[in-house]
Amino acid sequence: MADTVGIGVIGAGRIGKIHVENIARFIPQAKLEGIADIKLSGEQEAWARGLGARIVSKDPQDLLKDPSIKAVVVCSSTDTHADLTMAAARAGKHVFCEKPIDLSVAKVKAALDAVKQAGKKLQIGFNRRFDHNFKQIRDLTLSGEIGQVHIVKISSRDPAPPPPAYVAVSGGIFMDMMIHDFDMARFQAGSEITEVYAAGAVLVDPEIGKAGDVDTALVTLKFANGAIGVIDNSRKAAYGYDQRVEVFGSKGAAMAENDLPNTVRLFNESGVKSEKPLYFFLERYKGAFVDEMAAFIDSILNNKAVAVSGEDGLADMYAALAATKSVKEGRPVKISEVQ
Amino acid sequence: MADTVGIGVIGAGRIGKIHVENIARFIPQAKLEGIADIKLSGEQEAWARGLGARIVSKDPQDLLKDPSIKAVVVCSSTDTHADLTMAAARAGKHVFCEKPIDLSVAKVKAALDAVKQAGKKLQIGFNRRFDHNFKQIRDLTLSGEIGQVHIVKISSRDPAPPPPAYVAVSGGIFMDMMIHDFDMARFQAGSEITEVYAAGAVLVDPEIGKAGDVDTALVTLKFANGAIGVIDNSRKAAYGYDQRVEVFGSKGAAMAENDLPNTVRLFNESGVKSEKPLYFFLERYKGAFVDEMAAFIDSILNNKAVAVSGEDGLADMYAALAATKSVKEGRPVKISEVQ
Amino acid sequence: MADTVGIGVIGAGRIGKIHVENIARFIPQAKLEGIADIKLSGEQEAWARGLGARIVSKDPQDLLKDPSIKAVVVCSSTDTHADLTMAAARAGKHVFCEKPIDLSVAKVKAALDAVKQAGKKLQIGFNRRFDHNFKQIRDLTLSGEIGQVHIVKISSRDPAPPPPAYVAVSGGIFMDMMIHDFDMARFQAGSEITEVYAAGAVLVDPEIGKAGDVDTALVTLKFANGAIGVIDNSRKAAYGYDQRVEVFGSKGAAMAENDLPNTVRLFNESGVKSEKPLYFFLERYKGAFVDEMAAFIDSILNNKAVAVSGEDGLADMYAALAATKSVKEGRPVKISEVQ
Amino acid sequence: MADTVGIGVIGAGRIGKIHVENIARFIPQAKLEGIADIKLSGEQEAWARGLGARIVSKDPQDLLKDPSIKAVVVCSSTDTHADLTMAAARAGKHVFCEKPIDLSVAKVKAALDAVKQAGKKLQIGFNRRFDHNFKQIRDLTLSGEIGQVHIVKISSRDPAPPPPAYVAVSGGIFMDMMIHDFDMARFQAGSEITEVYAAGAVLVDPEIGKAGDVDTALVTLKFANGAIGVIDNSRKAAYGYDQRVEVFGSKGAAMAENDLPNTVRLFNESGVKSEKPLYFFLERYKGAFVDEMAAFIDSILNNKAVAVSGEDGLADMYAALAATKSVKEGRPVKISEVQ
Repeated sequence: MADTVGIGVIGAGRIGKIHVENIARFIPQAKLEGIADIKLSGEQEAWARGLGARIVSKDPQDLLKDPSIKAVVVCSSTDTHADLTMAAARAGKHVFCEKPIDLSVAKVKAALDAVKQAGKKLQIGFNRRFDHNFKQIRDLTLSGEIGQVHIVKISSRDPAPPPPAYVAVSGGIFMDMMIHDFDMARFQAGSEITEVYAAGAVLVDPEIGKAGDVDTALVTLKFANGAIGVIDNSRKAAYGYDQRVEVFGSKGAAMAENDLPNTVRLFNESGVKSEKPLYFFLERYKGAFVDEMAAFIDSILNNKAVAVSGEDGLADMYAALAATKSVKEGRPVKISEVQ
Repeated sequence: MADTVGIGVIGAGRIGKIHVENIARFIPQAKLEGIADIKLSGEQEAWARGLGARIVSKDPQDLLKDPSIKAVVVCSSTDTHADLTMAAARAGKHVFCEKPIDLSVAKVKAALDAVKQAGKKLQIGFNRRFDHNFKQIRDLTLSGEIGQVHIVKISSRDPAPPPPAYVAVSGGIFMDMMIHDFDMARFQAGSEITEVYAAGAVLVDPEIGKAGDVDTALVTLKFANGAIGVIDNSRKAAYGYDQRVEVFGSKGAAMAENDLPNTVRLFNESGVKSEKPLYFFLERYKGAFVDEMAAFIDSILNNKAVAVSGEDGLADMYAALAATKSVKEGRPVKISEVQ
Repeated sequence: MADTVGIGVIGAGRIGKIHVENIARFIPQAKLEGIADIKLSGEQEAWARGLGARIVSKDPQDLLKDPSIKAVVVCSSTDTHADLTMAAARAGKHVFCEKPIDLSVAKVKAALDAVKQAGKKLQIGFNRRFDHNFKQIRDLTLSGEIGQVHIVKISSRDPAPPPPAYVAVSGGIFMDMMIHDFDMARFQAGSEITEVYAAGAVLVDPEIGKAGDVDTALVTLKFANGAIGVIDNSRKAAYGYDQRVEVFGSKGAAMAENDLPNTVRLFNESGVKSEKPLYFFLERYKGAFVDEMAAFIDSILNNKAVAVSGEDGLADMYAALAATKSVKEGRPVKISEVQ
Repeated sequence: MADTVGIGVIGAGRIGKIHVENIARFIPQAKLEGIADIKLSGEQEAWARGLGARIVSKDPQDLLKDPSIKAVVVCSSTDTHADLTMAAARAGKHVFCEKPIDLSVAKVKAALDAVKQAGKKLQIGFNRRFDHNFKQIRDLTLSGEIGQVHIVKISSRDPAPPPPAYVAVSGGIFMDMMIHDFDMARFQAGSEITEVYAAGAVLVDPEIGKAGDVDTALVTLKFANGAIGVIDNSRKAAYGYDQRVEVFGSKGAAMAENDLPNTVRLFNESGVKSEKPLYFFLERYKGAFVDEMAAFIDSILNNKAVAVSGEDGLADMYAALAATKSVKEGRPVKISEVQ
C-alpha cells in the first residue's frame, strides 16, 4: 500500500507499549507489522498479536529483514539505541529512536552519520514538542503574538525520584531528566543554546547525592538569538508532575499551566480546592505520544523534514553535558566547550 | 464652598460608620459636617469628632436645620427611612437613603413624591452596581461586546443566616436579601422585570421556616426586553460570601468570579488550594461603598441623574413583593399584579 | 469467551461511528461482531471491516439473529429506537439505546416492558454522567464533601443552532437538548424531579420560533428530596459549547468549568486570553462516550445494574414533557401531570 | 499622647505623597505632624494642611527639631537618604527610609551605625514583604505547609522602561529594580543569599545598553540554607506590571498570580479574555504601602523589631552589587566578594 507505512517496534517496555498501541489504534497511516523484545513474554505476544502484529520475536533482526517494514521504532534499553539505529538505517529503514541516542557523543555522531549515509529519516522521541499546551505556546510565538522572544522559563518536576540505583546509571539529572527541557527550551526559543550555568543541590534524597548526582537543579540558558532562559528541575514535587512553560517576548507572554484531571473546584470551609496535576508523563503526554508518531509517519509518507531531528538530539545532549560540567565546576560553560 | 458638598449622616451603625469614614477620608468633594444617632455613645462622638464632624447629636433635626449641610445620608433603622427622607427633602437636602426606603409601597411612594416636590436628588444604597466586577460586566454589555442580552444569572449567598428573630421582621428573604439581586438583575439586563417565578425552600435552618420565611430561593425573571434571568440565594454558604454574576448574550458572555483575599494557590499532596472568598459585604463591597457615595456627590455637584434612583428602589421592591407572592402561591406572578 | 461481550451496532451515523470505534479500540471486554446500517456505503463497509466487524449489513436482523452477539447498540434514527430495542430484547440481546427511546411515552413504556420481560439489560445513552468533570462533582457529593444538596445549577449551551427543519421534528428544545440536562440534574441531585417551571424565549433565530419552538430556556426544578435547581439552555453560544454544572449544598459547593483545548494564557496589551471551550459534544464528551460503553459492558459481564436505566430515560422524558407544557401554559407543571 | 506617634515626612514626591496620605488616613496610631519638601509648591502646602500637617516647610530641619515628631519618613531623592537618616537618628527620631539608603556601601554602613548609636529604629521601604499575596506565601512556608524550601522563583517585570537618562544614574537594573526582588527572595527563602549568577541582555531598548545597563536579566541565587532561586526582570512587559512569586518545597509549592482589576472573564468568538494586571506599583502595592507603615508605627509603639531592617537593606544591596559584577564578568559571584 502506498499510503500506509509498515512499522516494527523494538522494545516493548513501558514506552514501547505506548508506541505499539498508538500505532495500532490511532494512526491509520501506520501499520503495525511486528514487535521484537529481548525478554518477550507470552503475555506480550498475545497482546501484540491482538493488536495485529504479524511478526512477534525476541530478535530485532526479524524486523530489520522484513521488507514490509519501512520504519523502525527503537524503544529498547538506552545502551542499544545507537547500534539498533545504525543497523536499522543500514537495513533501509527509517528510524524513530527514543531519547537519548546514546550517552557518548561519538556514538551519537556515528548513528547520525549512518542514518545520513542511508538517506533515511531519523526522529528522536522528544514528545513534549507535540504537547497541546507547549505547541500552542510555540504557535503563538510563530504567529507573532509574543513578538521577539526575550525569556523562556520552564518548570519540570517529577512526582517521585527514581531509585538511587537508577540514578547511578542514568547519566545524571541533566542527561536523564532535564534533557527534555533543553529540547523544549530550544524549541520555544527557536534558537540554539550557547551557554549554560547550572546550580544544583541535593535536597530530595541524600542517596542521590551519594550516587554523584543532584536532585534539584536550576539552569540559566543563553541562546544564539540573544534570548535568555531558565529551567528548574526537581526529582520530587509533592503535588505531582509539574510541567509548565512560559515564553516572554517583546509583545507579550504565553504561559501554560499544568493539566488537571478535571475542572472541578470544591468550595468549602477550608477554601477552594482542585485536583492535583495529571500523575506522570504517560498521563500528561498521552496525546503527545500519538502526535509525535503521527508526525513521524507523515514525514515519511510526504517526505517532510522530521519534527525532532538527530541533530536536535545531539544539541540537547551538548546542553546536558555543559550543565553537568557547569554544576561540577561552579561556572558557566559554553556549549562550544563540550562539542 | 462651591466645589464640596456638606454632608450629614443619620445613623452611625455598621453601614453608617462605613459611609461616615468614606466621606471623611476618600471623597474630597464631600465634607462631613455632622452625624446624628439616636443612641449616640461617647465613643461614637469621639470617633465622629476625630473625623472632623462639627455637629454630633442624638437628634437628626440638628442636621436638617443646619444650612451648611446640603445632603443627608440616611442609615438609621428601616422604619425611619421614609420619614427621614421626607423630612430631609422638605428641609431642602439631597438624600442618600439606604435600602429599603420602607416595607410599604404607599410609604415609599410618599417619600418619592416628597423628594420630587422638593426638587432634590435621591439615591438608594444599592452599592453593588458600583462593584468593580459587576460594573465591568455592565460596561462590557454597554460597549456591545456581549451583544443583545439573553440570560442574566446571579448567585448571591450569605456566609451565615441572620438570627430567626431578625428574619421575622426583615420582610423576608426577597425583600431583605434578594432585593440587592433584583436591582443587579435590572442593572445588568438594562430592562425592567415583568414577571417572576420563585421556588423557595427551608434547607438551612428550620427556625427560619417557623418564622414564615424560606432560606434558599431560586427566582426566574422575565424582562421587558425579552431576556430571561435567574437569581439564587442561600442564607448560608459554608465557604463564605458567594457573589457572582453572569450575562449571556448574542455575541458572548461575561462572568464574574468571587473576590479572593489573595491570588496564592497552594499545591500539595491533597490537591491545589486557594482561599475562601472575602468574608462578607463590608469586605467584598468595600470599594463599592466609596464609589456609590462619590457618585452621589458627583450627581449633586454636576447636577447629573443619580445612579440608583428612588424609582429603581421601587421597582426592586415590586420584584421582591412579586417573588414573595410567587413562592406563597406557587405560580409565576406578574409585576403588574403587585404595583 | 466468558470474559468478552460480542456487540452489534445498529446505525453507523455520527454517534454510531463513535460507539463502533470505541468498542473496537478501547474496550478490551467488548468484541465488535458486526454493524448494520440501512444506508450502508462501501466506505462504511471498509471502515467496519478494518475494525474487525465480521457482519456488515443493511439489515439489523443479521445482527439480532447472530448468536455471538450478546448486546446491541441502537444508534439508528430516533423513530426506530423503540422497535429495535424491543426486537433486540426479544432476540435475547442486552440493549444500549441512544436517547430518546421514543417521543411517545406509551412506546417508551412498551420498550421498557419488552426488555424487562426478556430479562435483559437496557442502558440509555446519557453519556454526560460519565464525564470527568460531572462525575467528579457527583463523587464529591457522594463522599459527603458537599453535604446535603440544596441547589443544582446547569448551564448547557450549543455552539450553533440546528437547522429549523430539524427543530420542527426534534420534539422541541426540552426533548431534544435539555433532556440531557434533566438527566444530569437528577443525577447530581440524587433525587427525582417533581415539578418544573420553564421560561422560554426566541432570541437566537426567529425561524425556530416559527417552527413552534424556543431557542433559549431557563427551567426551575423542584426535587423530591427538597432541593431546587435550574437549567439554562441556549441554541447558540458565540464562544462555543458551554457545559457547566454547579452543586451547592450544606457543607460547600462544587463547580465544573468548561474544558479548554489547552491551558495556555496569552498576556498582551489587550489583556489575558485563553482559548474557547472544546468545540462540540464529540470533542467535549470524547472520554464519556468510551466510559459509558465500558460501564454497559461491565454491567453485562458482572451482572450489575446499568448506570442509566430505561426508567431514567422515562423520568427525563417526563421532565421534558412537563417543561414543554410549562412554557406553553406559563405555569409550573408537576411531573405527575404528564405521567 | 502615649498611643500615637508623631510623624514628619521628608520629600513629597510620588512615594512621599503615598506615605503622607496613608499616615493621615489609615493609621490611627500615627499622627501626621509635618512635611518638608525642598521644592514645596503652594498646591503641596494646601494638600498637606488639608491632611492635618502642622509644619509644612522646605527645610527638613524644621521637622527634625520639632519635639512632637518622634519618627521621620525619608522619601527625598536617593542621594539625600543616608545623610537625612543620620541627621534624623542624631535628632532622636526613628527613621523609615525609602530604598536604597545609598548607592555606596560605606555610606549605608555609616547610616546604620548612626541609627544604632542613637538607639533608634530604622525600617527600609521594601513594601512588597507586606503584599497580601507574597505575605500569604511566606505565611504558608512558616506554617510548615510547604516543608523545607527548595526553590524560590520570582518574576518581576515593569510595564515600561524608565528614560535612558534615569537609567544612567539609577545604579543599574540590579540596584534599581531587582533589589526589591533580592529582598523578596531572602524573605521567602528565610535565608541569606551566598552567591549569584546573573545573565543580562539588552532586548527592550538599545539606549539602555548604551547607558551601560541591561534591560532583561535572569539571576540564579544560592542561599545559605541550601535552597536555590531565580529572579527574572524585564524593563518592559507589554501586558503590564508582572509580579509573581513561587516557592517550591519538600511538601508542596505556593504560587502567587498577578492581581487583576476585576475577576470578569469575557467569553466570545475569539476566546476567553480577562483584564491586564494592575497597572504599576502604586496600584499593585497599594495595601502594602499602608501595611508597611502600620508595621513601622507598631514597632515603635510596642518596641518590636522592625520588619525590614537596615541590615536587610544592606544584604539586598550586596546581592545587587554581586549581580552587577556577575553580569559584567560572566561568572558566578559570591556575596563575600562584594562585602
